[in-house]
Amino acid sequence: MNPVFSDKTKDLAPSAIREIFKSLTDPEMISFAAGNPSPQSFPVEKMSLISQDIFQNDYVNAFQYSVTEGYTPLRELVKKRLASKFGINYPDDELIITTGGQQGIDLTAKVLCNEHDVVITEDPSFIGALNAFRAYNTRLVGVENEKDGINVEKLEKAIIENPYCKLIYLIPTFQNPSGTTMSLEKRKRVIELANKYDKVILEDNPYGELRFEGEDIPTLKSLDTEDRVIYCSSFSKVLSAGMRMGFICGNKDIIQKVVVVKQVNDVHTNIFFQILAARFIERYGLDEHIAFIRQLYRNKAHLMLDELEKTFDGEIDFTHPQGGLFLWGTMKSGMDSSEFFRKAISEKVAVVDGKTFMPTPGECHSFRLNYSTPSDEQIVEGVRRLYRAYHK
Amino acid sequence: MNPVFSDKTKDLAPSAIREIFKSLTDPEMISFAAGNPSPQSFPVEKMSLISQDIFQNDYVNAFQYSVTEGYTPLRELVKKRLASKFGINYPDDELIITTGGQQGIDLTAKVLCNEHDVVITEDPSFIGALNAFRAYNTRLVGVENEKDGINVEKLEKAIIENPYCKLIYLIPTFQNPSGTTMSLEKRKRVIELANKYDKVILEDNPYGELRFEGEDIPTLKSLDTEDRVIYCSSFSKVLSAGMRMGFICGNKDIIQKVVVVKQVNDVHTNIFFQILAARFIERYGLDEHIAFIRQLYRNKAHLMLDELEKTFDGEIDFTHPQGGLFLWGTMKSGMDSSEFFRKAISEKVAVVDGKTFMPTPGECHSFRLNYSTPSDEQIVEGVRRLYRAYHK
Repeated sequence: MNPVFSDKTKDLAPSAIREIFKSLTDPEMISFAAGNPSPQSFPVEKMSLISQDIFQNDYVNAFQYSVTEGYTPLRELVKKRLASKFGINYPDDELIITTGGQQGIDLTAKVLCNEHDVVITEDPSFIGALNAFRAYNTRLVGVENEKDGINVEKLEKAIIENPYCKLIYLIPTFQNPSGTTMSLEKRKRVIELANKYDKVILEDNPYGELRFEGEDIPTLKSLDTEDRVIYCSSFSKVLSAGMRMGFICGNKDIIQKVVVVKQVNDVHTNIFFQILAARFIERYGLDEHIAFIRQLYRNKAHLMLDELEKTFDGEIDFTHPQGGLFLWGTMKSGMDSSEFFRKAISEKVAVVDGKTFMPTPGECHSFRLNYSTPSDEQIVEGVRRLYRAYHK
Repeated sequence: MNPVFSDKTKDLAPSAIREIFKSLTDPEMISFAAGNPSPQSFPVEKMSLISQDIFQNDYVNAFQYSVTEGYTPLRELVKKRLASKFGINYPDDELIITTGGQQGIDLTAKVLCNEHDVVITEDPSFIGALNAFRAYNTRLVGVENEKDGINVEKLEKAIIENPYCKLIYLIPTFQNPSGTTMSLEKRKRVIELANKYDKVILEDNPYGELRFEGEDIPTLKSLDTEDRVIYCSSFSKVLSAGMRMGFICGNKDIIQKVVVVKQVNDVHTNIFFQILAARFIERYGLDEHIAFIRQLYRNKAHLMLDELEKTFDGEIDFTHPQGGLFLWGTMKSGMDSSEFFRKAISEKVAVVDGKTFMPTPGECHSFRLNYSTPSDEQIVEGVRRLYRAYHK
């Protein structure tokens, strides 16, 4: 049989990153390619204690079907945290638990976008979101991302030129892949534009808890005046990525529609780990653990940046993230990013080709580096290999 | 802001069943409405032991991102079981782990169906699947389900009349909602029709392990001669529903496309419970535990059927399931099923209105009863209440 695929999925290819991830089996390879949190960031002992407790005292709830919206105590705890830490408490909004932050992105696109509608994103942007939008056959329009976030003049131009734009997808804080953070001034402009042109914004903030220097900048959602910002995030970088748990919060009508499509997508998110996460927050809070993770990533980010700047001495321009997992290099020589990727692999160090993150194909001289997963020794040696690759 | 929803989702409503489930808060209510496995079917102690082991010895794998296809040892164990128990070993097929059986249904529709394409189903059929298909704006065509399965003459007629039929969705064994099982003769005819008209079949078999009387009948997939059957199933009824774990197996090209859309849907299924399920099968096997569940449901099904037949004495026609969780009553008086549903609720017993399971709206005199969740006492008392409701 020769299967005939739907128009929306027929041209889709697997994410290049997941494919790299699978092929990194060479034990000699140093990987700066992952988007993984450090294994040290999993609070295993505390989770184990809570887990035993659930097996003993709450196993019926933990193993039976549950409601699509998510475990009520967890939803309440997350709402509280969003209000106190992120200024997010729009009256009448709704918050539900999703199967990773990824599901929130996928289902928001599903409920808002017809095929051929436009989704505007930063250029570069998170490949998982770009591919989720592509899988509904939307058309992506990228807008230049600068060191202080998206270029707002170009964003306005893109909005005007694309009347069928249904969604603006942004990662304002410690952006993936670039590591940049949008300035407060630009955030205010973005909200003004959404209001002026009657657009919905999806604010993706999986790294917002991981600031290791500088001052917090208000989320887009906290600046939202007309309930146009849908906010999604994840527990992947603060408790565990493997448990697949995130949340999405915003306009009640939109979130209720997301609940309906989540019901037919996976019924509900793994309920054992929803209970576990709620107990963790109740018992231990998240602040102490997050402080530990911030310190861990601060050290790794500084080490990698110091090594890079010392080694490349201005030949490559690097962003200076104040949090999150990634930084972004742009080669002043104008070397093609795919060429650099191949040279790096041949030197046994893996980066992600910047083209991976482009909403539409084009020239690229940039690449993404991750500092959360490699050890300190790997960071030092990996940067040396990158230098050899660049001068090959 | 007034959100504008996509064409595919704008008319979608939440599943009536999940809504009933949420509103069953009256402690006096006896519910025959759920689709839940019995809490006694969760092997809690064994799962707890394995869980402690994972926390001690395998936590990095259990909490980190993993591959979209699923945990390799689990995939291999499931493949082995499908081959030995269900005759499923089509060469070159692929099997992946999904977030519940529901995700397999959703994503298969996504990769195969354009908006306005036709999906043919049994009438009645599983509401979760019907709504998953609706959420891609497909058109549903129902074909009468008889006591020995779908009417194959009407199925052929439906195929001929609907050239844009991309998928035939069937639950041949212990069907939800009717409890019927398709005869071997009909299964062979269905495969012939799929071959003749070049169609893809999605065989959903979440209850196949739960036969408590009669002889196994080969799966459609085991009769598949041209690799046109995609087979999906779930661990919900044999280990735990709350962990959300299922699998889908079939034509490699289709499954690889499902992997691509799963990657952007939830990246991968909760990996802790994938490891746990694999260890469970390795250490204990599933047969002993499933034998226990079968005995449990045999007793409950017999009790409910005996009470129903004794009480209603031919006024209502009941199916006689040989496995699974459900039976189906059809009222000879021609009472409207929604009227009966309301009368039952007023007598404090919950059933599911048969209309819930109809692919397209129409008259209905039937309802679904679940026997796996209520206690024996509730079954006896609930049937009495049903009688009072019917004669109200």
